[in-house]
Amino acid sequence: MTIVTLTTDFHGHYVGVMRGVIKSLSPATEVIDLSTEVEPFDLKGGAFILCSSYKYFPKGTVHLVVVDPGVGTSRKAIAIKTKNYVFVGPDNGVMAPAAEEDGILEVYEVGKGFLEGREVAPTFNGRDVFAPVAAFLADGGDPRELGKQLHRFERVEFKRTVGGDFVFGEVIYADMFGNLTTSIREQDIKLSGSMVVTIGEKGFKARRAETYADGKEGEFIVLLGSAKHYEISLSNGNAKNSMAARVGDKVTIVRG
Amino acid sequence: MTIVTLTTDFHGHYVGVMRGVIKSLSPATEVIDLSTEVEPFDLKGGAFILCSSYKYFPKGTVHLVVVDPGVGTSRKAIAIKTKNYVFVGPDNGVMAPAAEEDGILEVYEVGKGFLEGREVAPTFNGRDVFAPVAAFLADGGDPRELGKQLHRFERVEFKRTVGGDFVFGEVIYADMFGNLTTSIREQDIKLSGSMVVTIGEKGFKARRAETYADGKEGEFIVLLGSAKHYEISLSNGNAKNSMAARVGDKVTIVRG
Amino acid sequence: MTIVTLTTDFHGHYVGVMRGVIKSLSPATEVIDLSTEVEPFDLKGGAFILCSSYKYFPKGTVHLVVVDPGVGTSRKAIAIKTKNYVFVGPDNGVMAPAAEEDGILEVYEVGKGFLEGREVAPTFNGRDVFAPVAAFLADGGDPRELGKQLHRFERVEFKRTVGGDFVFGEVIYADMFGNLTTSIREQDIKLSGSMVVTIGEKGFKARRAETYADGKEGEFIVLLGSAKHYEISLSNGNAKNSMAARVGDKVTIVRG
Repeated sequence: MTIVTLTTDFHGHYVGVMRGVIKSLSPATEVIDLSTEVEPFDLKGGAFILCSSYKYFPKGTVHLVVVDPGVGTSRKAIAIKTKNYVFVGPDNGVMAPAAEEDGILEVYEVGKGFLEGREVAPTFNGRDVFAPVAAFLADGGDPRELGKQLHRFERVEFKRTVGGDFVFGEVIYADMFGNLTTSIREQDIKLSGSMVVTIGEKGFKARRAETYADGKEGEFIVLLGSAKHYEISLSNGNAKNSMAARVGDKVTIVRG
Repeated sequence: MTIVTLTTDFHGHYVGVMRGVIKSLSPATEVIDLSTEVEPFDLKGGAFILCSSYKYFPKGTVHLVVVDPGVGTSRKAIAIKTKNYVFVGPDNGVMAPAAEEDGILEVYEVGKGFLEGREVAPTFNGRDVFAPVAAFLADGGDPRELGKQLHRFERVEFKRTVGGDFVFGEVIYADMFGNLTTSIREQDIKLSGSMVVTIGEKGFKARRAETYADGKEGEFIVLLGSAKHYEISLSNGNAKNSMAARVGDKVTIVRG
Repeated sequence: MTIVTLTTDFHGHYVGVMRGVIKSLSPATEVIDLSTEVEPFDLKGGAFILCSSYKYFPKGTVHLVVVDPGVGTSRKAIAIKTKNYVFVGPDNGVMAPAAEEDGILEVYEVGKGFLEGREVAPTFNGRDVFAPVAAFLADGGDPRELGKQLHRFERVEFKRTVGGDFVFGEVIYADMFGNLTTSIREQDIKLSGSMVVTIGEKGFKARRAETYADGKEGEFIVLLGSAKHYEISLSNGNAKNSMAARVGDKVTIVRG
């Protein structure tokens, strides 16, 4: 039994319908939500969510990703075969960080031939294009039957610049507790002790901590999230609301 | 393996418990969320969600629908057998548009005999009535064992009136991007070019488009949603918030 | 096929990753959401949700509960074997009411031996500790292999005091319709007719009802929820918002 995971910036019956399409085409496939809570059109947040989650699923899993502000336009629909997984979604970069981390083997465009005879609504390719492709691949279909091989595809990047005593980056995700995940990774810089953090135009002091419970009430802490990106957290509070921070905001951390 | 889908205006552990009841009574049944995001008590929105989704599931699927403002009162619990599916839920009209589209064969009331020996909380028939009925039917149970056959049942309707150069309708659903689905269908009227739209008491110009990405920043567009109902969308914005629109608002579209 | 249920105060891809870990370790296990909507850090609400839901799942189900404000600290990770189920989660009391109701047989701490060779992020024990333990137990693993047996563990309690004509309690849960579940149970006191209710510092008259639809517009009613706790509801309204009530607020009900 193969698993198809769903990562989308929509929810409710739009996701329900995709589950139905996959089960109709491939009854033995198990459909599991990876996340249906990507912020609308947030390619960077979607890329982070996928990149920090994909490898916890069994090898052979098909990861279906529909964060697709360009639905119905000329952007391509693609499938990326990597060492251990297959990723299916729009060619807008959202799958790139995960696929590149796992190791890309081949990329295919979903061509008109594959979709022939199928009605495709320009407003819902998740139902009419991506779910059928995922079901086909979960059933062991050959990705070469999807369409022509591609040698270029779109990327989103998690930007950061590392200096001697500082690092520049950006907010790429905010979780439900208001913790702010940055593009800065453990492998970029080792942070310890006290530091000055700037988000957008607001600066504040923070201290390196190991767990969310380490800080004192109202203290800002910097800790290593479970995906090994640094996170900014407010003890017993909500860093996102307190700083009026948003995904995409610039982050600077200066030691000392 | 049969599928039972869930469509509810509640979520969290109330839905979790229904999953548990179905799996306890019918271990081989697969329970899949169609949508647990119907607005509270919104029969019309629930009817639209079900009607635009049910047919994407495998034939034989049992669609369990609990949008039930009258829970615990004398409203009936019913099962509707259609050409390809079975619908289980309260007799308040929420299942009617989907069941009628698929073609109704027989309707049964869930009688006291079927529920005998079962404790039924007046506040949670989803757990104590509808989930057991769905599990029974998913296991191949004969709907005639539920209770007596009905020849009348409740309906909700998607209202619209079509004239020469205009159409009257209503908002029946708002999605998470603020797009407003109307009761007006492609088969009612072909819309193209520019038009004047009124929602409630607010009028504005709009233009027919094919995809959400077709409009210019701040432009209102009218497009055909994936369920072939016309939708009103605000490019790079949120039509629902911008118009302070609500499900049930009257919609008028005048050509030109 | 064993079921593992998930009860968490986080959602999105954090839950998705836990599903992936369980399916990777135990492919035949079915993962079902009990609720991913516990309020952040709300041990009492989480305990109520679990306690009112666990018994609707098939015997042998593993209930995995991650409401864990102390993640990464020295609080223990435990597994509680009860008459019909196994509960896995942090030792902070959230599982106690459910486990005690079902009848506790044995409690085990998850020790370093069991986790040896496994990387454990201090910020996400759900992924690195609790999900692997649940998969191990769902596969029939012996809980004695987890670590040493415990004879003391943490509890949360639903407080109430019953007098002749009154009862003191607290709000332990608010549902999506604004109905307020109290710690007061049917077995504590039989309520009927009219009564005076106080939530926090606000008092109002209320009337005993059987169903949510029983009240007149704007009337406060007290009814027995599906878990046999008394609930306070505002007819055609939202009691939580109307009373600005919160989980933990004191509740007094005086007859007459």
